[in-house]
Formats: sequence, structure tokens, C-alpha cells
Amino acid sequence: MASSEFDLIERHFCHLTPARNDVILAIGDDCALVTPRASQQVAISTDIMVAGRHFPHDTSPFAIGVKALATNLSDLAAMGAEPAWFTLGLSLPEANEAFLTAFAQGLASVAIPHNIALIGGDTVRGPLMVSITVHGFVPVGQAIRRQGARMGDSIYVSGTLGDAGAGLQLVKGELVVDNDLAAAALVGRLNQPIPRLAIGRSLRGIANAAIDISDGLLADLGHILNASGVGAVVDPALLPLSADLITAVGRERGVQLALSSGDDYELCFTLPPVRESRLSALGRFRIPLTRIGTVVAEPGIHLQQESGIAQVVAPQGFDHFLDNDEMND
Amino acid sequence: MASSEFDLIERHFCHLTPARNDVILAIGDDCALVTPRASQQVAISTDIMVAGRHFPHDTSPFAIGVKALATNLSDLAAMGAEPAWFTLGLSLPEANEAFLTAFAQGLASVAIPHNIALIGGDTVRGPLMVSITVHGFVPVGQAIRRQGARMGDSIYVSGTLGDAGAGLQLVKGELVVDNDLAAAALVGRLNQPIPRLAIGRSLRGIANAAIDISDGLLADLGHILNASGVGAVVDPALLPLSADLITAVGRERGVQLALSSGDDYELCFTLPPVRESRLSALGRFRIPLTRIGTVVAEPGIHLQQESGIAQVVAPQGFDHFLDNDEMND
Repeated sequence: MASSEFDLIERHFCHLTPARNDVILAIGDDCALVTPRASQQVAISTDIMVAGRHFPHDTSPFAIGVKALATNLSDLAAMGAEPAWFTLGLSLPEANEAFLTAFAQGLASVAIPHNIALIGGDTVRGPLMVSITVHGFVPVGQAIRRQGARMGDSIYVSGTLGDAGAGLQLVKGELVVDNDLAAAALVGRLNQPIPRLAIGRSLRGIANAAIDISDGLLADLGHILNASGVGAVVDPALLPLSADLITAVGRERGVQLALSSGDDYELCFTLPPVRESRLSALGRFRIPLTRIGTVVAEPGIHLQQESGIAQVVAPQGFDHFLDNDEMND
Repeated sequence: MASSEFDLIERHFCHLTPARNDVILAIGDDCALVTPRASQQVAISTDIMVAGRHFPHDTSPFAIGVKALATNLSDLAAMGAEPAWFTLGLSLPEANEAFLTAFAQGLASVAIPHNIALIGGDTVRGPLMVSITVHGFVPVGQAIRRQGARMGDSIYVSGTLGDAGAGLQLVKGELVVDNDLAAAALVGRLNQPIPRLAIGRSLRGIANAAIDISDGLLADLGHILNASGVGAVVDPALLPLSADLITAVGRERGVQLALSSGDDYELCFTLPPVRESRLSALGRFRIPLTRIGTVVAEPGIHLQQESGIAQVVAPQGFDHFLDNDEMND
């Protein structure tokens, strides 16, 4: 643990996140001490976010805090895990009080509703970078992995896709949208992703495979397919697009973003058709779950065209896809 | 988890660390899955190391790997915990194969003897930085905390102190030593710290308080004293100095380094005199354990002078101490 002027800051962070009775000791000693749950496994994920690569340099400190924790929680969601604890590594060019206060508030705004406690941290001087490791519980044998997709499974996604990709183009000045409300909503999807934890947990025993969409649907669905040794047919006409996205870029460009742009942090999952009726219970979360395709034996992702002919996208071919003008014709 | 060209590298790392049957799933999904032990708590610690701050820019990649994991393990040692799993966040300016191979070998050289498995990672392009989160087991209620020191406790340190501080001066060119073997040994202490895990575990039920010495004896003993609401009398004449250190800088300067320089990663701990006889069982580890002083009621660290008069060092006063020429007179 750091022993420095930053100690006070870390203690400050600590009070912003929820108290949990399985946290015996949080910040302030050589290690944190936590009590795991009997007959549950612990799911652990770690991510680094670097300024200028994972978020634009001028992102607000609040949004950096939100995004850093939310994207990690999204990994727990994809496994069907329940959040418990996280550690924070923060590298900052200087001990800027205003930055730290807003960053901590951003973290807390995500930590509190998901009942995840900050249990340890290290804060150093250096280039702006956030490293978070999240821990969650999952009953033994019930984690949803990438490798479980089976031929004939239906493929679903939660929420809407492509919004964060349009948000990034807006932030970069590559896209101009007259409708201010739509533009704000799209940038909000980029800066304040909502981890689909309740949906992820509810998919235990229903989904055969799941992943969160951080790199784009084609890339992340590709990970499921590769891990499972199968392929997929996806119908672009079925992709769920928000009204904001259609307002901003139109349907055709919206579909392209939904297929290829990242940062939406929705879930993509597969399940046997016989279990589809069980998804209706997830309606209480008021997040649309949309069937977008089917798992097939032949490797690769096959895009259904309006003409009825499938366009094949290589499993790792999303970069090719972006260079392919056919979707823009 | 990262989904990038670095995935291969992460899998490469994974094979270099030991297999454990409590690791259900390591790298390659949204989260790792591990099985905690019944009636044990989990100790967790996280640290960030930034090039140019925590290690010189020209440190060898092997040494960076060693140091990054060893310093985290030292936090587990200080709590009396048994290592189990770690996650790795690595920010690198470029995917340099030679760097990665040597760095991974350095990590493995520490991970294998301590039976700690790499369970997850994220590798990004950015300024050179390593962020590691370690996890270990400790039986419920047996963790050794900083806050347990009691008036009358004897204060001990493991190994020898000041070596890494002299090593840092050698690396920086601030110190020149004719004896090449001594110089190499001191730089080795800086670059390849040895976490005192076996000693830490053996101190369960013996030590009232413990910490690892990362910032220097005065600073880290100060953390124990502050957390415990007590003070200490330390006799500088009792500080264990290596023959290499005395060869390099002489006894007087050696004592100053032993008090104030960091990076030795030895343990400092306190125990009631009635338990001192139980330390003899730790002789099997062949690391000297040296009594250096006593816990007293009055706050602060009181240095015993040859004249018999105690010089008082403020609890957080190690910086003052460095500016104080009295030790050099």
C-alpha cells in the first residue's frame, strides 16, 4: 500500500463506497481482509484505462471515475457475478484536489447502487491512468462463460448498440448532430456506461454463453464463437438501435456502428430456443433483450443481407469490415 | 479483459506461473474464477509501479518483473498471509517481445517458488507502468495488523537494512564502491527484493503487529506506532547491517541508511518479551531476526544515543531526519 500524502485521499475514497460486513479491513494496513462466501466462487477481473487511449484527455474526472468502475463491473455482469469488492490503482500527474473529488464522486455513483466496496488502493504520481480490479461472487458452477455456445442457440443482445460509438465520434468532432438532446444521450452512453449486472445474474442457468460488448458486437460475439468452436448468422436488420442513434446518423450508418463500434457495454449472450420463454421474467429490468441471430456450425459471422445472401465476416474480421464500403453503398 | 494483440502475451505469462487447483478459470474469459478456502479470509493488496519513480528507467525488464511481484508479496508477508493468486495490469509503450519475455521470466521467478498463480491481466499501450493485485489466505482472525503493538513489546526486524538504499545510490551514480561484489549485492537487494513470506506466516500468533519496510524503518515503524497509539525507543547500534553495506559506506552511514532508506522489504514486527523464545523456531529460515528496540507509551521514535540520551524523531519525521546532520557528525 502507498504510504504518502495520498493516504488521506484513499481514505476519502473509502468513505464514498458502501460498507459491507464481509470487509474485515479496508484501506490502512498492508492488505485488505475480506471474508468470502461459503460455496461461492470469486470472479476477478482487472482493467487498465489510460488517458488518450481509453478515454479522451478532456474527459471529465467524474466520467473517468464512472467509466473505470462501470467497465470493470461489466465484466462481472458478463459472468453472472454479484459485485463485492474492488481495488483502485490511480496514477496522477499531480495531487489535484478538484480532480480527485470529482473522480471519487464518479466512482461512488457506480459503487453505491451496485454495493461494491473499495477495499484497497495505491495512488502514485505519473501519467493519468486508472487500474481497477473487481471481485464478485458466483455460485459454484453457475458462472456464464464464453465457451458454452451451441449450434442452434439464439443470439441476443441487451439494450441498444452503436450509441457509444456515435458518442465517441461526436466527442472527437468527427460527427455533428443538430439535435442536442440526441447528441447528449449518445455522449452519455460513451462516458457513463451502465453495467448490466442484474441481467447478467438473471441469465445464470438460462444463457449458454455471454460476453460484454466492449470492442464491438462482431469482435465480442467473435470471442464467444471462437471459444465455443461455432459460427453465427446475424441479421443486421434486427440490431436494436436507439432513436437517438437513428436521429444522429440514420439507420444504415447506425447498423454499421452497432456491428463494429465498441464501448456500449451491453451483454451479448446465447441460449437454446427452448429457454427463450424464460427471458420474459427479465422484462422487469426494463432493458430490451433482442434476438439478433443464430449460432451455426460453420465458423465465422455471416451477415444476412436484404437480398437473402449472407455476407461472411471473418471471426476476427471487424477491422476488415470497417474498411469494407459495401455497407455504405 | 483486453481483447487485442496482447492476448497471446497474456496467455504466455499464464503458463509461466504455477497451476493451482483452486483456479477454476484463469485468463481468457471476462473474469477469472477462483475457489476460496473454507474458514480463511482473503488478504488483498494492490500496488502501482511507474518507471522513473519506483524503478530507474534503465532497470532490466527481468528486474522489473521480479520487483513488481515481490513488493506486492511483501504486503502479504506483513499480514501473515499465504499467496494464492495475482492479476497483472501492464502498460507498455510498445509490444516489445524481448521486454515481455524477460519481464515474464522475472515474474515467474518470483511466482513459482511462492506458488502464486497469474489469474488475469490487461495489457495496454501507454507509459511503462505495472499494476499488480495479490490475493492470499489467512485463517480467520490470525492476520497480523499494524495496530496491535503494545507498550513493552520488543521490536524486531528481519534480515539486514539499508542495503537497497545503498543500491539505489549506486544505480544513480551517487555512490561509488570499489568492491564489485559488495556493489552487486547491494544493487541486487534493490532490484530483487525477497518477500519474507515464510517468516510472516510463522509470526501468526507470535507478533502483535507487523509491517514490511518499503519506505524506511523510521517511516514504517512509525505506521505501526501511529496505528497502535504508542511510541518506540530504537537503539541504532542494534540495527542489522550487512557486511556488504559496511564495506560500501561504513558503519555510520550504514546506520543512517538502515533508519531512513526504503526498498529493503524486510519485516518489522513487535511481540511481547514472553514470546521471544518462540522466535527460535524461525531460525530454520536462516534469516536473522534482530531485536532493535522497545515499544513505549510516549509517542514518537526515540533514538538511543551512545551518550545514553535519546534523540526524538517525530513519528512522521524521517524527512527531517535526513536533513539532520547530527548523525553525520
